[in-house]
This record gives sequence, C-alpha cells and structure tokens, in this order.
Amino acid sequence: MKVFMIGEAANHKDKLGAFLTTPCEIIPLPREAAHSPEFDSAITADDVVVSLRFSRNDGSVPDFRLLHVPGAGLDGIDMASLPAEASLCNVFEHEIPIAEFVMAAMLNWEIRPDALRGSFATDTWSDVYRARVPHGEIHGLTLGLIGFGRIGRTIARRAAAFGMRILAVDQFAADPDGLAEAILPPDRLPEMLAQSDFVVIACPLTDETRGLIGAAELAAMKPTGVLINVSRAPIADEEALYGALQRRTIGGAVLDVWYGYPAGADDRVAPARFRFEDLPNAVCTPHSSAWTTRLPERRYAFIARNIDRLIAGEPLLNLVRAPAPAAPPARQNTSFP
Amino acid sequence: MKVFMIGEAANHKDKLGAFLTTPCEIIPLPREAAHSPEFDSAITADDVVVSLRFSRNDGSVPDFRLLHVPGAGLDGIDMASLPAEASLCNVFEHEIPIAEFVMAAMLNWEIRPDALRGSFATDTWSDVYRARVPHGEIHGLTLGLIGFGRIGRTIARRAAAFGMRILAVDQFAADPDGLAEAILPPDRLPEMLAQSDFVVIACPLTDETRGLIGAAELAAMKPTGVLINVSRAPIADEEALYGALQRRTIGGAVLDVWYGYPAGADDRVAPARFRFEDLPNAVCTPHSSAWTTRLPERRYAFIARNIDRLIAGEPLLNLVRAPAPAAPPARQNTSFP
Repeated sequence: MKVFMIGEAANHKDKLGAFLTTPCEIIPLPREAAHSPEFDSAITADDVVVSLRFSRNDGSVPDFRLLHVPGAGLDGIDMASLPAEASLCNVFEHEIPIAEFVMAAMLNWEIRPDALRGSFATDTWSDVYRARVPHGEIHGLTLGLIGFGRIGRTIARRAAAFGMRILAVDQFAADPDGLAEAILPPDRLPEMLAQSDFVVIACPLTDETRGLIGAAELAAMKPTGVLINVSRAPIADEEALYGALQRRTIGGAVLDVWYGYPAGADDRVAPARFRFEDLPNAVCTPHSSAWTTRLPERRYAFIARNIDRLIAGEPLLNLVRAPAPAAPPARQNTSFP
Repeated sequence: MKVFMIGEAANHKDKLGAFLTTPCEIIPLPREAAHSPEFDSAITADDVVVSLRFSRNDGSVPDFRLLHVPGAGLDGIDMASLPAEASLCNVFEHEIPIAEFVMAAMLNWEIRPDALRGSFATDTWSDVYRARVPHGEIHGLTLGLIGFGRIGRTIARRAAAFGMRILAVDQFAADPDGLAEAILPPDRLPEMLAQSDFVVIACPLTDETRGLIGAAELAAMKPTGVLINVSRAPIADEEALYGALQRRTIGGAVLDVWYGYPAGADDRVAPARFRFEDLPNAVCTPHSSAWTTRLPERRYAFIARNIDRLIAGEPLLNLVRAPAPAAPPARQNTSFP
C-alpha cells in the first residue's frame, strides 16, 4: 500500500510518516495531480490519496481505497471522480484553535491587556497605579453562538468554564453536555441577538446563512454587543456591518474572515469593499484563527491513525462516504454492463 | 442597626444600599476612622463596620457586632482592636478576574493577536494572507500552578476546559474536582517547573514563599517557559528574574505585581529596581488583574447578603473569627476584671 500526498498535503509527508505505525511508502505528487489523470498510472486500487482537492478534468475515475481530505471542507472534492470502492474521510481539529481565538478575543475585549501594558512604565508607575481604571470580565456575560456544531460546542465548553451564559441558535444541534442555557431555532435569532454581549458566527456559509446578519439583525444586537466572525465573511452583510460599526450602533466586531481572497500566487484583491481596519471598534486579523503549528500535527496524526485502521481492517473514523457495497461476482466480472 | 463604611469602602455606599434587603442607615466615615477612636462614639454594640483596615492607636476597643472587610486580605486588621463580641468576615470574588487575566495572558502569549491585528491592512492583504505565520495553542500545554487555593483552582477550572495539563504545587490543597494531574508537595517544585509551559504564582506571600522563585528555580524552568505572577512580586527574586529574562534562559514573564507601591497620595516609588518593561519578553501591567468594575459589585452584594443574614440571625458566610462565647452573667457585669 502506498500513500500519495498531493499539493499542499505533500509538505506534511514527514509528519505523516512519523505518525504511521505501519510503515508505508509515501509519495508526494504536485498539485496538478489533484485534477489531472497524468499521475494516475502509479496509483493502484490498494492505495491511499491525501488531498484537499480532487477531480478528474477528463472524466476518468482512478482506482484507490481511501481519499483522506486533510481538512474539514469537502468543497474541493468532486464526488463523481471518486471510485465507488473508495472511502472518503475528512479531519477536523481546527475547532480547538478557533475556540482559543474566540475566547482570547472576548477576554481581550473586556480586559484590554494592550492598554494595561501600554500604561506601565517605571517613571509614571505611582500615578498610574493610583489612577488605574477598572476593566471588564466575561464572567456572567451572555455568549450567543450562531451554530452549535463542532466549533460552537468547543467554544461553549470553554465559555461555560468562565461562567458565561450561553445561548445558541441551531436548527438541529443537540446539547448532550448541557453547556447552553438554550438552543433556539433560527426564527428566534433576534431574541438571542438582543440578549448577547458577544455574538459568534460559527455556522457554515450556505444559501441560508449568506447575509444572515444584515441591518435588521445588527439593529437587534445590544448597543454594546460585539460580533465575532471566524466562519465565512459573507454570513454578515458587508455594508450593513461596516455601517453599524461606523455609526457605533453595536459595540464592535472581531473579524478574522473576509469577503475577498487572492486566488493564486500573484492575485491581488481587497479583503472587503470598506477599510474595516480603520474603524477603532473593529479588530481585524488575516484569517488566522485556526492557523497554528499544532493544527497540521493533530490532523496528520489523525490521518495516520486512520491509515493504520485501514490496514488493520478496522472501521475508519470521520467517514464521510463509505465504499459502495461490493457487487455480486457475476456482475463484478462484467466489464461492460 | 447602622452600617459604618470607612475610607475607600465609603465610595461603595450606594452599591451596598442597593443590595441590602433590610434597609439600614449607612454612614460613611473618613479613612482616619480606621485607626482613630475619634468617631467611635457614634458606633454602638449593634452596628456593622465595613473597612479594609482597623486598629485603635490609643489601645481602646470600640463596640460593634461585625467588622466586614471588603476584600480577602486581613493584614490591615489588628485583631486586638476588635471587641470580643464582634464577628469578622472577609470577601473574595477576585479569583474570577484574576483567572480571566491569567487565561488571557496564556492565550495571548500563544496567539499574539496584536501582531495578527497589526499585520492586517487592505493594501497588503493578499501578500499577508499568503505569508501567514502559524501561531501557538494552549491546548495540550502544561500549566504549573504554585498554590492550589481559591485562585489556583479557579484558573485550573478554566485551563482544564482548554485541554491543558495541570500540575500544582501545594502542601495542603485537595482537588475534589480532579482538575489537576497531580498536586505535588513543595519539595517537588523543581519537577513541576521543568515540565510546565506556563508557571503561575497563585500563593500568598509568607515567610516561606518570599524568594521562592530564585535563580535555581528559574534555571529549572523550560527555556520556553513563561512565569506569570498575579500574587505578590517578592515571591520571585527580583534580580534573578530580571537576569533570566534578559539572558533569555526562560521564555518570558507576565508580571502584574510589583516590588514597590506608593504608600500615599503623593508618594513616588519605582515598581522594581530594574526596568522590566524594557525587556521584550516581559509583559508588565500595573497590578490590574483583579481591578474590574464587576469585582466591587460582587463584593458588596456579598457583604449586603451577610448583613441581611446578621439581621435575620442566620450564620454568617466567610466567617474568619466568630464572636467569643458570651461570658456568664456574673462576669458580664464586672466592669473591671
């Protein structure tokens, strides 16, 4: 069995190798291998492919046992290009750094450690000490989560330990650990917005969630409420959000995701139609919340564990699509149905 | 029954009044009333005194029912100046903001949100996005707590929710909630220091803890280890700490407490013999960790609840010293023993 790692995944070849219990031949392939059949002759029905993207621009379907996506999103995968016998798995783990980023954002909004640090100097210490201005706490504040999936729950677990009150809006999610005070249906979003000190967008971008936070929803927020977006920018309407921040009808925003991304190495686009970073009540970061050194380590450790399971004949974890049931022998031998 | 609020406590007169279920006459007294008998004629055996400091410089002992300290520390209270019939209570609640400050310090050390924010600009977005540098996570890191009392446990509860590994050094503390992997006796401090990514000083300053973190202990820390002091500065040796930071034998320090404090309104002292704030690996703040707007609210709500209990004849909370048992009548009438 060989493991083919395509494009960006190939950068993590040594990581995967180090985590695998069963030694495998690991073969890096260039990013063209995600879409072109050029390299398919080397791949056999017994092999594993690790790639964020997969399609065949010539309509062919190569043969392999497992496509393991080294991320959560499946938008780069063309299901029609996968052999029926292949399993498809993905991997998460980004909920951990995203939750840490969100907790840091809320704590920093209340504590303002930069200002505290900036005020400290040996020469002015005595006066600064006497004139200290009290800051805020997140304890007792209300956190409103839009989406109570993997990311929302990971944030909730941490926020609950701080004594925050948690409200979530989610159509389907359950709350087996009892972290939230309530999981509200989507039509009760305005009620959640009106009660929340922090509103965190933690749902995927879909046709239903595009523009979910528009002028009316921003108007429903507390005047001190802070919107935190670590999901996809277009869930919040660009113009309405900029206006609410500029007119200070909400307290502020922490924005890590953007409306425009460069498509390739030389592409230059603006992150938004407005200069959010010039607003004093907007904290803007370059899509960094999940971008940690530990994330690829955890992800490739997970993928290695899954390849070990495949070799051992154990059920795969995070199985998105199981192989089609084996056809009966008579048909299996029919080359042209 | 009247409530006398002395010095700084008098600033919170309205807060206390608002929280009291039983209306009481609340009388503010100047800070001299903490040490001088000048105002004692107004205070009767039925009354309550709220003050951070209490002594009688003439050796007299006034009569009252309860001295409620609006903080945790009792170093401002001269026990010999309290009437035998009085109860003494204190109040905590600062463990909440201190734990939030410590969690923010650890998260910010790993995430560096300032640098992320500083790197974001519309004009350079495409290049910055492509060149993002991954940051750290606190998940899976080891937190070493020196002291596992109220503050240590409050930090541990939050750190545990982040998936940190927790080691504590404490002679007596128990861990009923199973937050820590181990509670080590003081002689195993070096072992804890060697394993911890963050070391938080969360013990009181006593003869035993003064200089507890000296050159040898700093040398026992990981070269990337970060010392966080939110307790009392002299627990860490000033010169040894400055040296370790300057020579980068430890990763850094977050210092919120200092070696020198101004004694009065016009006093000017230096916070330390060295300019810690000039070191790039030292985050220095002006004794701010517990200084929140919510802290006095929670404290005076607690004090009001205790006064309500006193009036209702219920047992007091946070009773530090109970009144002496009533003397038999014969002796009670003896004016000169």
